[in-house]
Amino acid sequence: AFRELFLRLHDRDQHEVFHLLYPEKKRKISEFLSPEEFAEIFEWMETEDQEDAVHYLPDEYMAQVFNFMAADDVAHFLTESDETDNQTLLAMMDEEESQRVQELLSYAPETAGSIMTKEFIAIHYKQTLTEVIEQLRQIGREAETIYYLYVVDEKERLVGVLSLRDLLLSPETETVENIMFNQVVSVRIDEDQEQVARIIQDYDLLAIPVLDHEGKMQGIVTVDDVMDVLEEEVTEDFNEFAAIKRSDDDRKTKVTPFSTAKSRTPWIVILLFLGMITGGLIGAFEETLDSVVLLAAFIPMIMDTAGNVGTQSLAVAVRNLTIDDDRDKDSFFQTVKNELGAGMLMGLVAAAVLIGIVLVFYGNAVLAFIISVSMFITVSLSTVIGAIIPVIINKFKIDPAVASGPFITTINDALGLLIYFSIATFFLEHL
Amino acid sequence: AFRELFLRLHDRDQHEVFHLLYPEKKRKISEFLSPEEFAEIFEWMETEDQEDAVHYLPDEYMAQVFNFMAADDVAHFLTESDETDNQTLLAMMDEEESQRVQELLSYAPETAGSIMTKEFIAIHYKQTLTEVIEQLRQIGREAETIYYLYVVDEKERLVGVLSLRDLLLSPETETVENIMFNQVVSVRIDEDQEQVARIIQDYDLLAIPVLDHEGKMQGIVTVDDVMDVLEEEVTEDFNEFAAIKRSDDDRKTKVTPFSTAKSRTPWIVILLFLGMITGGLIGAFEETLDSVVLLAAFIPMIMDTAGNVGTQSLAVAVRNLTIDDDRDKDSFFQTVKNELGAGMLMGLVAAAVLIGIVLVFYGNAVLAFIISVSMFITVSLSTVIGAIIPVIINKFKIDPAVASGPFITTINDALGLLIYFSIATFFLEHL
Ligand SMILES: [Mg+2]
Ligand SMILES: [Mg+2]
Ligand SMILES: [Mg+2]
Ligand SMILES: [Mg+2]
Ligand SMILES: [Mg+2]
Ligand SMILES: [Mg+2]
Ligand SMILES: [Mg+2]
Ligand SMILES: [Mg+2]
Ligand SMILES: [Mg+2]
Ligand SMILES: [Mg+2]
Ligand SMILES: [Mg+2]
Ligand SMILES: [Mg+2]
Ligand SMILES: [Mg+2]
Repeated sequence: AFRELFLRLHDRDQHEVFHLLYPEKKRKISEFLSPEEFAEIFEWMETEDQEDAVHYLPDEYMAQVFNFMAADDVAHFLTESDETDNQTLLAMMDEEESQRVQELLSYAPETAGSIMTKEFIAIHYKQTLTEVIEQLRQIGREAETIYYLYVVDEKERLVGVLSLRDLLLSPETETVENIMFNQVVSVRIDEDQEQVARIIQDYDLLAIPVLDHEGKMQGIVTVDDVMDVLEEEVTEDFNEFAAIKRSDDDRKTKVTPFSTAKSRTPWIVILLFLGMITGGLIGAFEETLDSVVLLAAFIPMIMDTAGNVGTQSLAVAVRNLTIDDDRDKDSFFQTVKNELGAGMLMGLVAAAVLIGIVLVFYGNAVLAFIISVSMFITVSLSTVIGAIIPVIINKFKIDPAVASGPFITTINDALGLLIYFSIATFFLEHL
Repeated sequence: AFRELFLRLHDRDQHEVFHLLYPEKKRKISEFLSPEEFAEIFEWMETEDQEDAVHYLPDEYMAQVFNFMAADDVAHFLTESDETDNQTLLAMMDEEESQRVQELLSYAPETAGSIMTKEFIAIHYKQTLTEVIEQLRQIGREAETIYYLYVVDEKERLVGVLSLRDLLLSPETETVENIMFNQVVSVRIDEDQEQVARIIQDYDLLAIPVLDHEGKMQGIVTVDDVMDVLEEEVTEDFNEFAAIKRSDDDRKTKVTPFSTAKSRTPWIVILLFLGMITGGLIGAFEETLDSVVLLAAFIPMIMDTAGNVGTQSLAVAVRNLTIDDDRDKDSFFQTVKNELGAGMLMGLVAAAVLIGIVLVFYGNAVLAFIISVSMFITVSLSTVIGAIIPVIINKFKIDPAVASGPFITTINDALGLLIYFSIATFFLEHL
């Protein structure tokens, strides 16, 4: 009864139910479900749960499961999992399936080659539609998608694409070359996965063909996998934004305080030293501070505002870099001009607010002047720093964490304090 | 010649070329291209460029262009654009097309209803496959996708889905109900667009049916539009993360220093006041600071580290909220425990580094003790604050900017300084 009820669910929902089963029941799943049935569930599981399953299920059963899975999903799991004995499992799989997986594993991580599937349909441009439909009926079940048929010439080079829609809506006696679309968008096998995702998104495709360096078609990348790629890349961007090192165990095994601390501590320690330098800066103005201790009360405000403004500019700059990869120099200077302009406007507002408040609460015009001017200059420059550092980092391929919020904040904090104490020291005798 | 060369391009690339034309040439495009041809280009254009085009092209031509566009793309443009005279254009369009667009405009923004397309194919469960294929041949050109055929009963309620693949690979004499898939995943018409996107992503769909409250099918949302939704939502998350108000003109018109400043200033001013409170805190410890001015040298380091650690935890928390919407209470306490644990580990490392440095550079054991203990406590708590505030905000539906990096930083800064100065004051006589 369990089996029948279970199989009546959508396979995605089967995975949800499976996730909630008792460990004892999970271990016995190989008695209830055929490898083909379990393969559908396994494809939806998180890497962590997949690893567990590989652990508690017999190797022979798992090798069978892999046979029924899409090769790209198997490759994805084997890449993500450190704990699995890839070689043993690959050796136990069907020869042909195993080789497909190994081919994908041989491409550099995060390239089109590593995320593509080999299960696409290639047709010949001289075929008639009747022949194509016959071919589809025979091999259509195994392909990842039959909605795009890829048209190749004698040398296996991609020359066009035929959508299933056009196939169905055209007279069956036509030949492929007359109705195929020949402005095919494709990617090279070593193209970065994020770029592949962008192209699929820009052209509203369901899949994109992957070509090797001779123009031969090697596979396709499908839109569902590309959505997961974008998800991963966004998480990566968020982590970089917050200066979190992508530790090896981060995405793969269970989150523990140790794994979390391991991925976050390195940059925090480096930033600690940077903060100490900023402190040394204040140390250099000890005399100023000693004569007017009140000045210290504005340190947090200057630091916070400098950091906050920088974080805003940074967030916009990071998004722009991701969205338009091919911004030119013109737009770089355009951005700097825009940020400086916006910074000056925001600085003016902040300065106006401060003049009022400092006059009311401290009744000290010189203090109000010092703080307002410092704030204006700091805010104006903080926007520019937040906007240009990621562009520079991107150009010189330095570790992107250096263009993170924490870094920008720390730099702007130091800058803000330097400006503040310089101006204060200059006007000290009037205070 | 221009026309021929131009039309030979992929329509997406036509739009790129069009973008580069001289304004004079752009204005004359209605003489070169039919409304149907220009519609293909218009669909790919940015809102800003679309607005320009509506401006310089004759209204009659544009109304024709809209007739040839997908209704959801027209609705999307009219929603985004403030400057366009919607009523005039809608009145000039074909009655039927115009009504489709107006229906979409009538749904709340960012819901399934507002981003769906009405151009789907519905079939009846009693039909034979031969009949379905015949129907497809007749109306297949106009539908957004023919790869999913939606099966309805006598009352127009959705009862299944038939993929074009299954249709093609089954004997033509079968009836629809025998081969359709009845575990259909669907969404309600008022479902949030981000949730719609998540479901499409989770189930690897090409489109999802949208039902009204009686279970009647009203439209479909397609994967290409959902990718753009995710893009928008990520940009929104980034902006919230950086405490940038989404101003009305932000995404629509040209970016100027004024529009930029307008969207960023509000939170900066609010945070400025918060920073002033932190400053008041230091003011309360003026005596302590006055007797040992050296203490000020560690203010930046305490503030920076508290803020940086909080930003890291926040980034992870924000991502987790987006990825798993249905995290339960258990996992909330799990997260708090994990963050506190990680914070204590990071705090220990930071404290150990600091003891060494302060001893070496200042040779003052009490100072080293004060700073290390403060740092340990601050870092331990900063992680927790960064992780739980977004969850609380999410629960109580407060403005998400309150869970932004700048807010968390400012709170942690204040907390860090409070801890630091309290401990310092307590041990003051030993310094
Ligand atoms: Mg397979
Ligand atoms: Mg798109
Ligand atoms: Mg589109
Ligand atoms: Mg796949
Ligand atoms: Mg990236
Ligand atoms: Mg990457
Ligand atoms: Mg239309
Ligand atoms: Mg998916
Ligand atoms: Mg999949
Ligand atoms: Mg659409
Ligand atoms: Mg959102
Ligand atoms: Mg939203
Ligand atoms: Mg700060």
